[in-house]
Amino acid sequence: MSGKGFNVPPSAEFVARVSGIATMCKLPFQETADGLDAAFIGVPIDTGTSNRPGARFGPRHIRAESSMLRPFNGWTRAAPYESLRVADIGDINVNLYDLKDTCKRIREGYRKIVATGCIPLTLGGDHTIAYPILQAVAERHGPVGLIHVDAHADTSDMILGEKIGHGTPFRRCVDEGLLDCKRVVQIGLRGPSYSPDNYEWSRAQGFRVVEVVECWHKSLVPLMEEVRSQMGTGPVYLSFDIDSLDPAYAPGTGTPEIAGLTPIQGLEIIRGCRGLNLVGCDLVEVSPPYDTTGNTALTGANLLFEMLCVLPKVKYY
Amino acid sequence: MSGKGFNVPPSAEFVARVSGIATMCKLPFQETADGLDAAFIGVPIDTGTSNRPGARFGPRHIRAESSMLRPFNGWTRAAPYESLRVADIGDINVNLYDLKDTCKRIREGYRKIVATGCIPLTLGGDHTIAYPILQAVAERHGPVGLIHVDAHADTSDMILGEKIGHGTPFRRCVDEGLLDCKRVVQIGLRGPSYSPDNYEWSRAQGFRVVEVVECWHKSLVPLMEEVRSQMGTGPVYLSFDIDSLDPAYAPGTGTPEIAGLTPIQGLEIIRGCRGLNLVGCDLVEVSPPYDTTGNTALTGANLLFEMLCVLPKVKYY
Amino acid sequence: MSGKGFNVPPSAEFVARVSGIATMCKLPFQETADGLDAAFIGVPIDTGTSNRPGARFGPRHIRAESSMLRPFNGWTRAAPYESLRVADIGDINVNLYDLKDTCKRIREGYRKIVATGCIPLTLGGDHTIAYPILQAVAERHGPVGLIHVDAHADTSDMILGEKIGHGTPFRRCVDEGLLDCKRVVQIGLRGPSYSPDNYEWSRAQGFRVVEVVECWHKSLVPLMEEVRSQMGTGPVYLSFDIDSLDPAYAPGTGTPEIAGLTPIQGLEIIRGCRGLNLVGCDLVEVSPPYDTTGNTALTGANLLFEMLCVLPKVKYY
Amino acid sequence: MSGKGFNVPPSAEFVARVSGIATMCKLPFQETADGLDAAFIGVPIDTGTSNRPGARFGPRHIRAESSMLRPFNGWTRAAPYESLRVADIGDINVNLYDLKDTCKRIREGYRKIVATGCIPLTLGGDHTIAYPILQAVAERHGPVGLIHVDAHADTSDMILGEKIGHGTPFRRCVDEGLLDCKRVVQIGLRGPSYSPDNYEWSRAQGFRVVEVVECWHKSLVPLMEEVRSQMGTGPVYLSFDIDSLDPAYAPGTGTPEIAGLTPIQGLEIIRGCRGLNLVGCDLVEVSPPYDTTGNTALTGANLLFEMLCVLPKVKYY
Amino acid sequence: MSGKGFNVPPSAEFVARVSGIATMCKLPFQETADGLDAAFIGVPIDTGTSNRPGARFGPRHIRAESSMLRPFNGWTRAAPYESLRVADIGDINVNLYDLKDTCKRIREGYRKIVATGCIPLTLGGDHTIAYPILQAVAERHGPVGLIHVDAHADTSDMILGEKIGHGTPFRRCVDEGLLDCKRVVQIGLRGPSYSPDNYEWSRAQGFRVVEVVECWHKSLVPLMEEVRSQMGTGPVYLSFDIDSLDPAYAPGTGTPEIAGLTPIQGLEIIRGCRGLNLVGCDLVEVSPPYDTTGNTALTGANLLFEMLCVLPKVKYY
Amino acid sequence: MSGKGFNVPPSAEFVARVSGIATMCKLPFQETADGLDAAFIGVPIDTGTSNRPGARFGPRHIRAESSMLRPFNGWTRAAPYESLRVADIGDINVNLYDLKDTCKRIREGYRKIVATGCIPLTLGGDHTIAYPILQAVAERHGPVGLIHVDAHADTSDMILGEKIGHGTPFRRCVDEGLLDCKRVVQIGLRGPSYSPDNYEWSRAQGFRVVEVVECWHKSLVPLMEEVRSQMGTGPVYLSFDIDSLDPAYAPGTGTPEIAGLTPIQGLEIIRGCRGLNLVGCDLVEVSPPYDTTGNTALTGANLLFEMLCVLPKVKYY
Repeated sequence: MSGKGFNVPPSAEFVARVSGIATMCKLPFQETADGLDAAFIGVPIDTGTSNRPGARFGPRHIRAESSMLRPFNGWTRAAPYESLRVADIGDINVNLYDLKDTCKRIREGYRKIVATGCIPLTLGGDHTIAYPILQAVAERHGPVGLIHVDAHADTSDMILGEKIGHGTPFRRCVDEGLLDCKRVVQIGLRGPSYSPDNYEWSRAQGFRVVEVVECWHKSLVPLMEEVRSQMGTGPVYLSFDIDSLDPAYAPGTGTPEIAGLTPIQGLEIIRGCRGLNLVGCDLVEVSPPYDTTGNTALTGANLLFEMLCVLPKVKYY
Repeated sequence: MSGKGFNVPPSAEFVARVSGIATMCKLPFQETADGLDAAFIGVPIDTGTSNRPGARFGPRHIRAESSMLRPFNGWTRAAPYESLRVADIGDINVNLYDLKDTCKRIREGYRKIVATGCIPLTLGGDHTIAYPILQAVAERHGPVGLIHVDAHADTSDMILGEKIGHGTPFRRCVDEGLLDCKRVVQIGLRGPSYSPDNYEWSRAQGFRVVEVVECWHKSLVPLMEEVRSQMGTGPVYLSFDIDSLDPAYAPGTGTPEIAGLTPIQGLEIIRGCRGLNLVGCDLVEVSPPYDTTGNTALTGANLLFEMLCVLPKVKYY
Repeated sequence: MSGKGFNVPPSAEFVARVSGIATMCKLPFQETADGLDAAFIGVPIDTGTSNRPGARFGPRHIRAESSMLRPFNGWTRAAPYESLRVADIGDINVNLYDLKDTCKRIREGYRKIVATGCIPLTLGGDHTIAYPILQAVAERHGPVGLIHVDAHADTSDMILGEKIGHGTPFRRCVDEGLLDCKRVVQIGLRGPSYSPDNYEWSRAQGFRVVEVVECWHKSLVPLMEEVRSQMGTGPVYLSFDIDSLDPAYAPGTGTPEIAGLTPIQGLEIIRGCRGLNLVGCDLVEVSPPYDTTGNTALTGANLLFEMLCVLPKVKYY
Repeated sequence: MSGKGFNVPPSAEFVARVSGIATMCKLPFQETADGLDAAFIGVPIDTGTSNRPGARFGPRHIRAESSMLRPFNGWTRAAPYESLRVADIGDINVNLYDLKDTCKRIREGYRKIVATGCIPLTLGGDHTIAYPILQAVAERHGPVGLIHVDAHADTSDMILGEKIGHGTPFRRCVDEGLLDCKRVVQIGLRGPSYSPDNYEWSRAQGFRVVEVVECWHKSLVPLMEEVRSQMGTGPVYLSFDIDSLDPAYAPGTGTPEIAGLTPIQGLEIIRGCRGLNLVGCDLVEVSPPYDTTGNTALTGANLLFEMLCVLPKVKYY
Repeated sequence: MSGKGFNVPPSAEFVARVSGIATMCKLPFQETADGLDAAFIGVPIDTGTSNRPGARFGPRHIRAESSMLRPFNGWTRAAPYESLRVADIGDINVNLYDLKDTCKRIREGYRKIVATGCIPLTLGGDHTIAYPILQAVAERHGPVGLIHVDAHADTSDMILGEKIGHGTPFRRCVDEGLLDCKRVVQIGLRGPSYSPDNYEWSRAQGFRVVEVVECWHKSLVPLMEEVRSQMGTGPVYLSFDIDSLDPAYAPGTGTPEIAGLTPIQGLEIIRGCRGLNLVGCDLVEVSPPYDTTGNTALTGANLLFEMLCVLPKVKYY
Repeated sequence: MSGKGFNVPPSAEFVARVSGIATMCKLPFQETADGLDAAFIGVPIDTGTSNRPGARFGPRHIRAESSMLRPFNGWTRAAPYESLRVADIGDINVNLYDLKDTCKRIREGYRKIVATGCIPLTLGGDHTIAYPILQAVAERHGPVGLIHVDAHADTSDMILGEKIGHGTPFRRCVDEGLLDCKRVVQIGLRGPSYSPDNYEWSRAQGFRVVEVVECWHKSLVPLMEEVRSQMGTGPVYLSFDIDSLDPAYAPGTGTPEIAGLTPIQGLEIIRGCRGLNLVGCDLVEVSPPYDTTGNTALTGANLLFEMLCVLPKVKYY
């Protein structure tokens, strides 16, 4: 399955798409991140969600739909499997009955992954998971820049009396100094709100907030030029909530908000990250029970593949 | 649940979204419009539909999905519950077996509502209901301006030999002098037609017809500036058929037409109504059996909330 | 809406089924159990589930589908609304992010309900909720008999390192002495298991275990005669997990097991409880995202209505 | 397509099931009943329904799924296409906006069909249609015996103030003397009711009422022996509401009631009609929007084929 | 059904949409193309698909949804039924078990159609069918220009060791000289690929390749001006794969790729073909099992109607 | 993951059901059958199906749903993982475009498996696959006894002019002498047919045919006693088509027939095979696109686990 030590997924030219165990991109499964440049890993929870659940099945369904992917990125001419050693390393074994313990398990699991120098590409799971992942990532890299693509700021202090949930991860990250706040951008925010000035706290931290209204009717290529400049050369984490996309494109998610980004803009954002010092990425909140055609999971799979294609050192033709 | 006599829905910060009886926006239910500035009310019929039925369940599903809404409009900084007294006043008790009698029941029900000075925000139901609603509205306010957002003109004279149905309401309104025809605009019209010049009759009445082709690839903010000018200071009724939106965004409807408006444009239209003398609004044709993810109902709920936010006297931060 | 102080739901002969706020059976909503003989109450959680989530929407969907019910039980001639004062008292406000805190909230909520003498009829939610409900019920009535209808024994000691979850409630009840173990019957148990002798612990407590194999191909009327005799005159709690039914009849549930009971047998069980001293009932594990037609919720609504019909003091014609 | 003047549908041995215009059983379409012994005909309405609509698409979907049928009845050795000339004669052109006018159109359409001696096999449509069909049938044959298979008696006097709807057809038939009341049997009745003694009126007319409880856990072959004896040699009409079946088997219907008949019992009932003087049959209330797999329509198609197989003069091997 | 010998579908003003046999646009069915200017014809296969099947049901579902269409094109003022004689001529009888034999059957069937001068408008079926159709078309017209709208180039040489499948048709066409390669344009291409330079082969043949990235955020009206100029006056075939559209608009297809064309752009492409010498058109890859709302089939039906409207000699008002 | 060299799947008591790569029963994946007593293997095709496709996704979805299974069979006290070494060995790489070549690939793949002495438990795939599997099995074991559970006899000689397809496998097996015809039983056969005496050919070969009518309303335990006696001590192959079950229980299949077996009867059949010399088993025709809840795949997973539990040498407590 490899040339020069790389893992290359079987091409549908030679192995039928429907055939084979459903690992991410049909890559080999291995139990740890040892020897890998990048790893796909799942965190199957939805116990942090405030509305529709189901994201616990996100990793399984993203893997299943990823059988549509092919080894090259024909759009951008990236050849990720010719320069990085990549595998699927399975899922964090979560505690479905205690969200705080789950967070601990995630943090510990990611500590081991990032310790090897491997870049984690996470298949969520609800957005709660960004908090313990960023704990592990910042422990290794120091406070990181953050490109946060989402319908929601996820910066509430407490929800239903709790500090941990899918509405609070980035508040916790700031509380613990995990983010380099001047290098944080939130793109796609929108929707009814708990207060009239919904993004006040984000702005007060120094985050750049790009409300979705600023994105309507246009290409995000210019925005990403600014974002690259904001991010500089420091370590950057990319957290992509599928609900940043309009529900027409991503119905299978838990807290959909109308009038969102398009997948075209999603691709522009991710491709706009090329050249950054990405140290981790996630794609969260795919909820298969609400994904009646499988196309939200398919979109998630594509976006994760695009993230792989913009990691440092990926070869381009 | 209220400050200064207002009804404020419980916030999901304190009450779980999934908890509680499914009234619109989780507002209190009251049996009449007494004491209200605005009221959400359902008209659960689909017996006027020409193709896929199901809109009879529109009010129930819009209410259920409205649990995602929050008390402020973070996009526009509107705070409707701080300036208007709003409640859910339930549904008109319709006669499912006789459409003409249903129309009579609607007219009588709305007479009582508008008599109190309360502004009705209607959860449809198929578009037939706009006719008896406008009878009641015009009885109080005189001929009204109309902002009609739809894929179809709904101005047929007869369908299947009948005068009453969801393809004829605005013809009936003109017949009865309920509309101030110079202050009527129809936005989003499209699709195959019964005659080569499909909107001839509308134009002959003095309506402004904005075919969807004129809306493609652009923001509708400039259009709404013109519409506000057309409407002036007189009373205006906003009738929003969810099928004005492209079926990708609103699959759950009875007579979908391809290549429609986007929810972004829908928001631009409604927000563009701010400052007008709105005396009533409806959101019609959500058909839950075809809304496999619930997102059409969710879109309907959002649009109704946006209508509430542009009613006269709503406070903005 | 009442005769002699009773609440009688509007009949579909006079009010269209589709019309009106979706309370259980279209009964009036009131905020507390004061003055009620029996109350429908929802507990919208699924954070105790081990597989497919969604039961958090159980109460909402059971209420919606209950609009099909009518005021009398034509099969058995029960007239519950002529002898009991019944209402819908809404939902427990659960903490979606902390299952243990949710259990505390449930226990406290039910303490208030049973303190009034009102019999709670619970719309679940996952089966975890039976534990705190039984804490409140046993606090008032002492250890109770239990008729537990389920595919699973729900008597595990720990799952994923946790004591609280939908696989453990009845173990916890025994730990705390809430059950009169000689008056416990578990009906419908089946499926692959964690140990070769799956129901050993139940039997060791003195429970009667009726594996589903004993129920195949037959009426359960004779079984219920034995169960009534086992239960005697003491207080009895009925806990009905919809997954006791075969997945053909109840697809909308989280941990389906094949070859289960039929709704006919479900009715035989509930009707066989007539004459017992029922002090509480629940219907749990309806998961709407997997209930593609709504018929699992409809079945749940029917079973809850049947439970109402066999409460003490219900009038029969 | 015929031998000796008969129409024989193409066999899937020679023409792919998926190929061809979707007529019933892939029979030829002809515009009138002229020259036919039996005809499949659709009546696409749901404007008489009290709950979930959709039956207007029943005929279209039953036709589509009928492509699974084959020319012989291998179970019973009936060879209907070797003894009867059968075709699909399309649909009644209904008035979707006026139920009373629709009834008139149905009656007139059926008058023409039965005038030719052709036996109509109707694809519904909601159950309202049985009333005008029986008007036409009784006009030709005099008062007929009726085998009515249903969850509901459909004998209400008025619903929502109306005489015509899917809850009243057989009351209207009795009002007009269309039924030979001693030769009426209603099989499968069940569910909550508007009065404690739900079938009192039916019994008072002399109908035999077979509540579903009498059918549970047993074959209906013995019952049908009694029914044949009850029906004697006079003309008999068979009206089969798909909701007589348990919702597990027929989810795609508008007013499902739990604990119903099985398709096995449905086949026993229809096959038990062999030898009777059947003058018409219908299969009503298939509602495709709720038939998520198409199997309710498929069941309807099979039952209609079985009806064809028990018409007088069908050849058996 | 006709004026001056034309077939005019019944208008929904006079015949209910739900009524009648589901032919394309409710046109008359006839067994051959004799006497027709244009014919709708189905090719119900999916045995050439590489991922999700289901396109075998494409013709049946496109026909069903086409009942929403009306006789005129109100957008463009085309009146196709006033200038062309059109009918539905049913389906090719395919061999589901042998794709090569199916291709032979298609070629032979189309030979007969084009021999009469009739223009075939094909309801697919997977894209494999374009190859044998073009064999027949080029046999009559010589090498044709091709407007190929698709997410994929479909120019692989072999897939899974096979020459024939839905990824190879246009390679085969070039192999056999069926295309006038300078007059070929491929629009909408995108997605991960088997090689870094995915469209190299197409370009090497002289095809114009318009990757979807070139189409983002803009109208395709200018592109089509160039295409018309490229096509000149020679015969042109239009092959429209529904997966050219973004999956939000066309979820019901087998190999969806994100970030595709919009239906607005699809209409711009087809309408931009007006004036060309179109000799055949197809709409392929609608897969009903993945079309949960029917709207992909509806979109397909609309696009086919638009194709009809731009055929040579269609009258415009 | 093993004790004494066995593979034991992780228990949901310790690893969350939703966590981990979706292999069958969460068993380890290995590339060949070496060292295994039994192996789960997928054959993902549907190109032999005559109606609804989708079975190509059967293996993937059965694996996904198998995460509900547990290590012991609590019903029967079987402990398969304590006596057999079992793994998931992935899928045959099928040729989706040539069914005959696929059959060759299957035969060759199974030759290698059975050569090691490993017993294959196959996840289909359509029923065509039974033919090449039996070629390999009979090559090793000689003509085998066959327990064939199905709605259809699958003994046609030709369909659409072809010898190979899902309607013909057992005809081909007889042609090639792969079956010990006196030791063949077909259970559950039913449905309309191509000839009046549908099972004549089967009976002529000496097969025992148990039409479904013989199974209605009863336990199949007595039947299986006879079947065990018929099978004797020779090698036996069990081929279980999920469409043997009634569509209520197994909607997700391609050619459903009403009035079928229940899962209870399915379990009785499989458990009744205990003690036989089983040399291979398959579970075919699960079609996920029609399995809207996943429960058909879940049923398939359970039946495959039950097959594992009755293999020779399985330990029982």
